[in-house]
Amino acid sequence: MKQYITHHDWQIIEDDFHDEHNRISESIFSIGNGRMGQRANFEEQFSGDSLKGSYVAGVYYPDKTRVGWWKNGYPEYFAKVLNSCNWIGIDVLVNGKALDLAKCEIRHFKRVLDMQKGFLQRNFTVQMPTGEVLHVEATRFCSLVDDESGAIRYSISCDFSGELTLSPYLDFDVVNEDSNYDEKFWEEVQRAVGNGEGYLTAATRKTDFHVCTGMQFAINKNGSTIQLDPTLTEREKYIANTIKIPVQASDQVVLYKYAANLSSENHAKDKLVENCKQVLHRITEKGFDAMLKEQASAWAERWRDSDIIIEGDVAAQQGIRFNIFQLHQTYTGEDERLNIGPKGFTGEKYGGSTYWDTEAYCLPFYLSTADERVAKNLLVYRYKHLQKAIENAEKLGFHSGAALYPMVTMNGEECHNEWEITFEEIHRNGAIAYAIYNYINYTGDYKYLSEYGLEVLIGIARFWAQRANYSNAKKAYVILGVTGPNEYENNVNNNWYTNYTAKKCLEYTLLVLDSIKEHSAERYTAIIEKTRLIEFEEQELWRDIIANMYFPVDEERGIFLQQDGFLDKEIEPVSLLPEIDQPLCQNWSWDRILRSCYIKQADVLQGLYFYEDDFDETTHRNNFDFYEPLTVHESSLSPCVHVVLAAKLGYYDKAYELYLRTARLDLDDYNNDTEDGCHITSMAGTWMAVVQGFGGMRVRDDQIHLNPFIPKQWSAYAFKIRFRGSVLNIRVEQGKVKVIHESGLPVGIVLNGQKNELFEGDEWVL
Amino acid sequence: MKQYITHHDWQIIEDDFHDEHNRISESIFSIGNGRMGQRANFEEQFSGDSLKGSYVAGVYYPDKTRVGWWKNGYPEYFAKVLNSCNWIGIDVLVNGKALDLAKCEIRHFKRVLDMQKGFLQRNFTVQMPTGEVLHVEATRFCSLVDDESGAIRYSISCDFSGELTLSPYLDFDVVNEDSNYDEKFWEEVQRAVGNGEGYLTAATRKTDFHVCTGMQFAINKNGSTIQLDPTLTEREKYIANTIKIPVQASDQVVLYKYAANLSSENHAKDKLVENCKQVLHRITEKGFDAMLKEQASAWAERWRDSDIIIEGDVAAQQGIRFNIFQLHQTYTGEDERLNIGPKGFTGEKYGGSTYWDTEAYCLPFYLSTADERVAKNLLVYRYKHLQKAIENAEKLGFHSGAALYPMVTMNGEECHNEWEITFEEIHRNGAIAYAIYNYINYTGDYKYLSEYGLEVLIGIARFWAQRANYSNAKKAYVILGVTGPNEYENNVNNNWYTNYTAKKCLEYTLLVLDSIKEHSAERYTAIIEKTRLIEFEEQELWRDIIANMYFPVDEERGIFLQQDGFLDKEIEPVSLLPEIDQPLCQNWSWDRILRSCYIKQADVLQGLYFYEDDFDETTHRNNFDFYEPLTVHESSLSPCVHVVLAAKLGYYDKAYELYLRTARLDLDDYNNDTEDGCHITSMAGTWMAVVQGFGGMRVRDDQIHLNPFIPKQWSAYAFKIRFRGSVLNIRVEQGKVKVIHESGLPVGIVLNGQKNELFEGDEWVL
Repeated sequence: MKQYITHHDWQIIEDDFHDEHNRISESIFSIGNGRMGQRANFEEQFSGDSLKGSYVAGVYYPDKTRVGWWKNGYPEYFAKVLNSCNWIGIDVLVNGKALDLAKCEIRHFKRVLDMQKGFLQRNFTVQMPTGEVLHVEATRFCSLVDDESGAIRYSISCDFSGELTLSPYLDFDVVNEDSNYDEKFWEEVQRAVGNGEGYLTAATRKTDFHVCTGMQFAINKNGSTIQLDPTLTEREKYIANTIKIPVQASDQVVLYKYAANLSSENHAKDKLVENCKQVLHRITEKGFDAMLKEQASAWAERWRDSDIIIEGDVAAQQGIRFNIFQLHQTYTGEDERLNIGPKGFTGEKYGGSTYWDTEAYCLPFYLSTADERVAKNLLVYRYKHLQKAIENAEKLGFHSGAALYPMVTMNGEECHNEWEITFEEIHRNGAIAYAIYNYINYTGDYKYLSEYGLEVLIGIARFWAQRANYSNAKKAYVILGVTGPNEYENNVNNNWYTNYTAKKCLEYTLLVLDSIKEHSAERYTAIIEKTRLIEFEEQELWRDIIANMYFPVDEERGIFLQQDGFLDKEIEPVSLLPEIDQPLCQNWSWDRILRSCYIKQADVLQGLYFYEDDFDETTHRNNFDFYEPLTVHESSLSPCVHVVLAAKLGYYDKAYELYLRTARLDLDDYNNDTEDGCHITSMAGTWMAVVQGFGGMRVRDDQIHLNPFIPKQWSAYAFKIRFRGSVLNIRVEQGKVKVIHESGLPVGIVLNGQKNELFEGDEWVL
Repeated sequence: MKQYITHHDWQIIEDDFHDEHNRISESIFSIGNGRMGQRANFEEQFSGDSLKGSYVAGVYYPDKTRVGWWKNGYPEYFAKVLNSCNWIGIDVLVNGKALDLAKCEIRHFKRVLDMQKGFLQRNFTVQMPTGEVLHVEATRFCSLVDDESGAIRYSISCDFSGELTLSPYLDFDVVNEDSNYDEKFWEEVQRAVGNGEGYLTAATRKTDFHVCTGMQFAINKNGSTIQLDPTLTEREKYIANTIKIPVQASDQVVLYKYAANLSSENHAKDKLVENCKQVLHRITEKGFDAMLKEQASAWAERWRDSDIIIEGDVAAQQGIRFNIFQLHQTYTGEDERLNIGPKGFTGEKYGGSTYWDTEAYCLPFYLSTADERVAKNLLVYRYKHLQKAIENAEKLGFHSGAALYPMVTMNGEECHNEWEITFEEIHRNGAIAYAIYNYINYTGDYKYLSEYGLEVLIGIARFWAQRANYSNAKKAYVILGVTGPNEYENNVNNNWYTNYTAKKCLEYTLLVLDSIKEHSAERYTAIIEKTRLIEFEEQELWRDIIANMYFPVDEERGIFLQQDGFLDKEIEPVSLLPEIDQPLCQNWSWDRILRSCYIKQADVLQGLYFYEDDFDETTHRNNFDFYEPLTVHESSLSPCVHVVLAAKLGYYDKAYELYLRTARLDLDDYNNDTEDGCHITSMAGTWMAVVQGFGGMRVRDDQIHLNPFIPKQWSAYAFKIRFRGSVLNIRVEQGKVKVIHESGLPVGIVLNGQKNELFEGDEWVL
């Protein structure tokens, strides 16, 4: 845990340069707009520790799998989000010596991520080793309005006389640190460099994505534009303009650099350069200040819909806004081919691929804060991968249309390669089915089921039916050899969560089948034909499995057992673990973790969270009381679900403690890994912790249920939810709840058990 | 399975060139002498498929670990046996065109591995694409007498006129196919090339082993030595002599190439070249024919002591001799720093490292066929690694002198990197303890215990005491999260074999402690002091674990359960598996294998084999009847133990079937992987199958027990065993057993239950 970020309502602030934490800051201060993203690397040269990262959405590299020992069925590659062209680079020479913060005396340094307006600004004053003093203010953003573009204002105030050399450049000669074989992934396609501009197109190896990155720039000195007479530099995958400017003390030189990243996912390859020029022309015309103003407006719109206000606790306020901000930077919901990588555009780790995180943790955020279309696009993404999921299951020996969605994917193919994950974390299939249920329950969009959802459900149901087997010893169906969401167990039998989610999926599929048969017979017939569902036999088997699924329990404690044999372990709470041993994943050998009772994220509790209404409160309480104390929350996805359950059970201190852990996970580097990038998908869990946890929001019977509590540290908090075309604004103060129906159709609301129907403009205080 | 090897009592014969099986042949026809080994690559160029392999004992490379996802506690490297200098190479040009069997018309081809005399010979007649016809006879061997040397006679009979060009060379610019990062492992140190000779010294990266390879050669034409006037070629890591010889049809040109491989393991680095010259000088003086004669004598000696004769079944005879031959080629027992790699000198896979194979499968062979010193050296090897085993355990969180021997090692450090193997296959510790018991039981060398054995036993006992934990649920000690010898299960709880071997180790350690306390009090005190054994507490805990260890059983079937929950699987015999699915490891995904009931090697049966006398025959039979039908024997180590048990239970057909599978595993490529190298360690299991299986040989109460049966396919078989300084010769015919005491002290023998004492020269027929 590191606490060097200054608390502020709307800003993330680093007041001094913490070179030892530079990679962490680079992650935290990342900017993005859903199409492209940029770690907070410096524009000028920096010889200190840094993870360079410029990412373009949808552009990946299938890096040849690296394994200790090949296992049959492993995928050929592990997909990587690519470090793409460095478009921010501006080399700065002061009297011929490079400006490099690792080599100067830093007199002042401040870095601010303005979340309200959506830009990153760095101010610093340095003395060069050769004595010159200069002050720099560098401002940049990825534009939400022109979403293939970024802009930089790099302003230098000189306290010296002599020569300033500026070299804005584009560099495709970049690496991924996580390259399996230390390869470079880009090959140059073409380049052009001219006076004040340049274009560089490169193609990814194997996948042949093309990306054209362009730049245009202008320089003014003391307010007057300088006529450029640059030296042009070209080498493979690199172009630069170099301008020498004579300066005197108190001169101010400002460089505006406009850049665009266009990918062949969105443009014909042969039009890339042309279109890139057009984009650059457009934004350059607009100019930096106008763009920044548009950026602020666009962000204001997003905040209007999705802000959470926390009063009386700046750390909590900053935390939740940071999470919401990063989510918007990562995914806009406008492109159904895209999804939400666990690190978004803030780092390489986890490959920028799609995980079950999306369905289990991100969907609620988008359901409640964005147009229905956004959540639907996330579901359609999986629908479009159904055939690949069927093929994936076939590779593992399943048949007849059984679908196993990949644990990690870019294009629908599995691209992770540890057997205990790839082959055994089959619970992801459950989350994908649950997300369909969740979406329908929230939106009432039943049409989605017949159009898309049912086919996916049938594929998944078939998988469960083949994956479970009847145990003669137990006289019940068992699911052997799985890894649950608690990845601190591998290859266990009868993971309660997996068995339960399998049963629920079978139930829901049968329900949906019946409903569609009843309400849209024609479509039903079409789906039966398309999926070749053997109506009677397959459904009979599903019913048999539902009726006879085995669930491990401990009657004495009144709990579900995480898996067979869990109670053979030495059971001791985390509170007795020496702090020096934590996080376990960095201090204990893997086998020791596996055979210990410690839980990365409690999957029994995850199941209670998903299927809450199936269980009474005693069951919730018994299980929470047993499992939470054994949980080390070393998955970033862990705390949020525990907040929701703790809040429900009235464990408010626990809920608040875990909330802080999720909300400030990256800002305070709780898990000692923010340097790899921010935990984007778990950020949606933070939103969930506030709205579903503290707010107690649920959707049942087409109504919004609220059961708010407010942590004693806060004076008030407020959030908005979109629900079936309406917008509700909920404000909770100590002892008071106010619900305002801001717009849209009437909404049924159950507040602390009291029913009401609110119409546009209604305000309900309790 | 492939059957292209011609059956023969003493020879391995390939009658035609099977280019599609070339890698398999290269493995099978490998030659070696314990210090060096050579795959059956061709001397001349070959552009077809080939795995080049020249190996020097003890020289390895710590290749940076390659993993999909790093787990805490993984070792930094995976040790590789190194492909070393190509010393066999002779480029042959016919009128300027390279002789290359992949590009000629092959009119005749025969390859013979003469096991009786210890050489490899290849005869072939080819027509060059340009029309020239030539006949080649290439003979080579690795000398047992001069064990750093090899020699080649390469004879060419010309059916053409023109020019023959011969270029004997040395090439250190070689690769390992299994290099993790496609690196080359050798760096040149120095080189010298002269008229008819050359020396090349290279060092391994990281480990800095130096190897000097030298060559001298001579050529004669039609019986007369040619004065050499070679062109010398030098480039990095490569030297060659090129000689052009005018020839006419019916000319015979013979090239003798002598080579030596000296390593810094046995010579000072600065003396390597000098010593290499001396060795070469010595063997060149001796000459090829004299060396070959010495080689035949040395092999005759080995066969005298360890041959197994099988009459009436050439395939079985060839199989067993091939196994014995390869074992002698791999390990001579003269160097306690060396051990037996699973592939010996026949391939790269498994890295030439030491596995539990040595203790579990190889020790009996060496105990019975070689001087006691050889088996003892194998044990001392582990004694010398004790400190490293303690450090290895510490890395995994154990303490107080607990020792976990590595699963795979070169120098005592763990160098494998799959968690389910490295961290969980802890049963290897059991095999190492068992081997001490086995050695003592066989030799009666009790002194070994106080000198070496006890310390190892204490380290291992401490490991088990910490690794087991008390289960409140079961009211017994459990061992969680292990992989048994049956590697088709991973991370299981209470693997019966592991639990039993842990208990036996604790028992034996207590027994040995008591015995040494009684018989050598001084040494006892020294060991207690050295190991800091807390006499009472530690031993009390051990006794408690012994008394309360949990063993999974199925009372109904009267069997031990392989692990907790085994009966939840769908239990169907292998006989119902489609043949197309086998071997499972090449056709099924890993998860499917894991959750199936199919067993790679039945570890419950392994336990019954080791601890035979603890169980009655019904127990043996019930378990065999249950587990063997579920066993796919996809470990090369599997069939031999099953032969011993089947024979004991009177399942003679089963025993014979499995015997053939182990004896001809490589010759007939049963597991479709001989191309990677021969299964050297399991070859000792084949010997075990005959002697302990068919012969029923056991050592109990300082006597040899025999209980022979003879397969109906055989008319007779005979084997020798060395036992406490005596040599016994046992010949079994249909209905008749003859035991001859060939030499040494009197030996107590129990033959089919009848007791006798045999003196030197005695013959006992029954």
